[in-house]
Amino acid sequence: MNVTALDARPGRVGSYLKGPLADDWVAAAIVVILLVPQSMAYALLAGLPPSAGVLASLAPVVVYAMLGSSSTLAVGPVAVLAMMTAQAIAPVTAAHGVSAELAAVVLAIEVAVLLGLAALFRLEVLAALLSAPVLHGFIAGAALVIALGQTPALLGLPIRGNTLWELAGAAVEAPKLTPHAATAMVGLAALAALWTLRRYAARGLRALGLAARPAALLGRAAPILVIAAAVGWVALAPEQTQGVALAGSVALSAAWPPPNPLDAAREVWLALLPSAGLIALVGYVESLAVAESLGLKRGEKISPRRELVGLSGANVAAGLTGGFPVTGGFARSIVNFDAGARTRMAGVWTAIGLLAAISLIGPWLEKLPKAVLAATIIIAVLSLVESHPFKQAWRWSRAEFGLMVTVAALTILFGVEPALAVGVAGSVALLLKRTARPHWAEVGRVPGSETFRNVKRFPEVETVPGALVLRIDESLVFVNSRWLTDTVTDAAGKRAPLRHLVLMMSGVNDIDLSGIEALEQLADALAARGIQLHLSEVKGPLRDRLARFGTDWLSGRIFATQMEAQAALAQS
Amino acid sequence: MNVTALDARPGRVGSYLKGPLADDWVAAAIVVILLVPQSMAYALLAGLPPSAGVLASLAPVVVYAMLGSSSTLAVGPVAVLAMMTAQAIAPVTAAHGVSAELAAVVLAIEVAVLLGLAALFRLEVLAALLSAPVLHGFIAGAALVIALGQTPALLGLPIRGNTLWELAGAAVEAPKLTPHAATAMVGLAALAALWTLRRYAARGLRALGLAARPAALLGRAAPILVIAAAVGWVALAPEQTQGVALAGSVALSAAWPPPNPLDAAREVWLALLPSAGLIALVGYVESLAVAESLGLKRGEKISPRRELVGLSGANVAAGLTGGFPVTGGFARSIVNFDAGARTRMAGVWTAIGLLAAISLIGPWLEKLPKAVLAATIIIAVLSLVESHPFKQAWRWSRAEFGLMVTVAALTILFGVEPALAVGVAGSVALLLKRTARPHWAEVGRVPGSETFRNVKRFPEVETVPGALVLRIDESLVFVNSRWLTDTVTDAAGKRAPLRHLVLMMSGVNDIDLSGIEALEQLADALAARGIQLHLSEVKGPLRDRLARFGTDWLSGRIFATQMEAQAALAQS
Repeated sequence: MNVTALDARPGRVGSYLKGPLADDWVAAAIVVILLVPQSMAYALLAGLPPSAGVLASLAPVVVYAMLGSSSTLAVGPVAVLAMMTAQAIAPVTAAHGVSAELAAVVLAIEVAVLLGLAALFRLEVLAALLSAPVLHGFIAGAALVIALGQTPALLGLPIRGNTLWELAGAAVEAPKLTPHAATAMVGLAALAALWTLRRYAARGLRALGLAARPAALLGRAAPILVIAAAVGWVALAPEQTQGVALAGSVALSAAWPPPNPLDAAREVWLALLPSAGLIALVGYVESLAVAESLGLKRGEKISPRRELVGLSGANVAAGLTGGFPVTGGFARSIVNFDAGARTRMAGVWTAIGLLAAISLIGPWLEKLPKAVLAATIIIAVLSLVESHPFKQAWRWSRAEFGLMVTVAALTILFGVEPALAVGVAGSVALLLKRTARPHWAEVGRVPGSETFRNVKRFPEVETVPGALVLRIDESLVFVNSRWLTDTVTDAAGKRAPLRHLVLMMSGVNDIDLSGIEALEQLADALAARGIQLHLSEVKGPLRDRLARFGTDWLSGRIFATQMEAQAALAQS
Repeated sequence: MNVTALDARPGRVGSYLKGPLADDWVAAAIVVILLVPQSMAYALLAGLPPSAGVLASLAPVVVYAMLGSSSTLAVGPVAVLAMMTAQAIAPVTAAHGVSAELAAVVLAIEVAVLLGLAALFRLEVLAALLSAPVLHGFIAGAALVIALGQTPALLGLPIRGNTLWELAGAAVEAPKLTPHAATAMVGLAALAALWTLRRYAARGLRALGLAARPAALLGRAAPILVIAAAVGWVALAPEQTQGVALAGSVALSAAWPPPNPLDAAREVWLALLPSAGLIALVGYVESLAVAESLGLKRGEKISPRRELVGLSGANVAAGLTGGFPVTGGFARSIVNFDAGARTRMAGVWTAIGLLAAISLIGPWLEKLPKAVLAATIIIAVLSLVESHPFKQAWRWSRAEFGLMVTVAALTILFGVEPALAVGVAGSVALLLKRTARPHWAEVGRVPGSETFRNVKRFPEVETVPGALVLRIDESLVFVNSRWLTDTVTDAAGKRAPLRHLVLMMSGVNDIDLSGIEALEQLADALAARGIQLHLSEVKGPLRDRLARFGTDWLSGRIFATQMEAQAALAQS
């Protein structure tokens, strides 16, 4: 493998061995400790055996290291994509009688193909459809519904579901709703221990005299103690832990050979395609955000297209080796970054370390209670629920706050697809609504300057008798073309007698065909009342297009600046 | 009936009798002559017996006269809505076994309810969704497919269909495709005669010494000669016209009582609802455009909401009296206007005149060949096909021209619903695409002025060393938020060493949550490179929102004008 291709800075194997290698090893070791329980947990969250999570953490990491552009992004199974995978494959396995493992690899291949097509046709711009309110609302909702969905496993309740709707239905239909005592005990104990360690481990280690960085790193690794304690309890006290559901085999030999995606029928491929589109979109947007925010800290340039290629390759690898859809994970990438990973080789070392760990302690991990994995997931996802974006949205725009809350609620209640569909449609509708009713103002000249301001905000400005100057603060497009003619003719009607009307176009960035037709109608309507229509401050690209299109419909002139218009009208 | 309510100017019955009455009578007489064959023809186009067209031309006109706001709009059956009605009811009558007459009245009531709800909830703004390219493309496509669909009736071919797809399918399946000789003869003769009269009748009458206005009005009425000749031929030469399909009964006694909309099952109502939505939208937009363009000529103010109420009432009337969806017709309103109609009472006189005409000559009209009605329709709709909007679109925007042609082609091939769905989605997509990739420019000061211009267009402008001023010509919203950070950081990277970056916001009309988050990220990214981010020329409403939101994330200042920014940076 060509090490230089993996390092942002040019170098050789020798310089890698002397330089970043040690840093990459430390980072890889920490990530492996985190990854062992997480890979198992996210597989269970996706509705798959734990070995699928381990497989999704091996080959995809190596392929991303060869193709991607971020030096610290940790690719692998992540909570939100695992939940989306569960929601995607559950109806398909029920309707078409395929195994969840087969559906998962088909899904991963489809995600890979869609990401590859997006790279080929430069569709990375589609990521812009997930607006900030949709993304924040979706992540918060997904985290809450994941935590909610893990609660039955945490307590040993016999209900399952991927949405609140399904969970409520299962709860109503369940014959009894009594927690399994031993399961609930180990689950709640693990939850409390993980929460305490996350909150106090690093602080405690610093109080014991450790420096800040090693204390933080060891703190990150502390959850391994909970895993070890739980496995130990199950191994040593089998009579106490009877009936506690255990994780089951992580032996890769049992999971090999993986299902062949081509064994799935055409209907299975078609049924999974819409979900694959959403998983590709969400996975790409999330991963890119992580890569860019970490790249920013390091002055590293992330290429959106190379990220598409890297994630596409990682998902091909996941699909061919029995995994499920993967992407760059937020928490794990930050750990990788904080632990000092310097090149994408850190990812390769992570894969090698994970393989070694599973080979060594795999038989022990089989004894890990599912309730402890549920606790791991709950602690991991609750860190995704932040109040800051909601507060920020509340302060900036009540409408966008409303959209954010709606998307979160729909994600919790009914799942990913309706939430994202409503979110994207809602974002577009809000944009159209704002464009449909632009801000506009009558403006006048600030005395002694070349600046023109709203006469209502600046009563001291000078206006020209017999002339009305209106600044329209929006592109003239189909959603506001009727508004334009109505508003301007109304304003002109209220200011009779009038001989000149100037539209100051400094805020008009674009005019579409509906807009140009509206301007033509407006010129006609004003001409019928003896008013000339002029334009001023038309931006360069629009001035060029108007010149090519012809301006004989315009009864007045096009002034380069409002000052020129003012001077010409004052003399007329 | 309160005549003052029908007249834009206050007055009394006495003054109406002395003033506008005679004008209204002349206009009504001309419109009746046009309406007799058109009402029958549009009913056949809608897939209904001719009496339904007559019924759709009576009560709705009177109700619109009471509720609407235009003094010259002629409400009744129109070609495009008749075609939409045919496309809507054909699958429903096939699937649910209801009569076409019953489906048509249900559709009219649904259209009425939707227009009424739109008036109640101020949804007239939804009309803005039909952009100029969609509307022009749809009207041209509808006219062509209507003409195409009438060709079999014109020639006596045994195929039927509402789209090119259906017509082609019927042609392939038809056992033989030979025109019926007598039908084709009368059809083509009528088509040639109607075309000649439309083109030369008024000119010929003027050449005979008539003044321009009466010549034009008599020319409009000339098609009655063709109708009379065709009826006469059928009556006098029954052996020659054997096998020619005739219009059939227009006797209102046979069509009365009309079907009761409440007899239709719930499924029929649900199945028709989407079509009713499109008919309401298209009918409203077309009617409003006609009313406003005629209102403009007369200085009459049209109220969009009162138009919704007027059209809603007219469709209730159509639904309760055995008609089908109606709206303000373009051609007929222009005739009404040109003929000198002065108040909405002209519409009432039209209804009375039509009723009288049908009572008197109804039995003769039954003998009118359907091929002549087909010729009437073809001549009427081909005037809707104009090349001007297509040329204009080609000159203004190739993308919008493409959308226009696509909508026209889809209307012809597959009908109204896919065409309008693709059209609206395409309009929104074009808007998003333009917003996603804004125009931007580095600007500098035009020497000796307060004007700032693109350095590429105006190489003589002055810039401040160590500072970069970028004007962004678009609102900062979710579709361009990633573009913003990428573009600005790239531009800053190319101009190192840099200490100040000013975003000139004169073209930024709005900022959404994604935009404000992008600005925060941008400020962070620039700060990491030692560059301060400043804003200038922020518009009033945005300045207020930013002040309320807080600006501690901004590393630099907010300057009221770019001149102030220039002065401050030159000193720093």
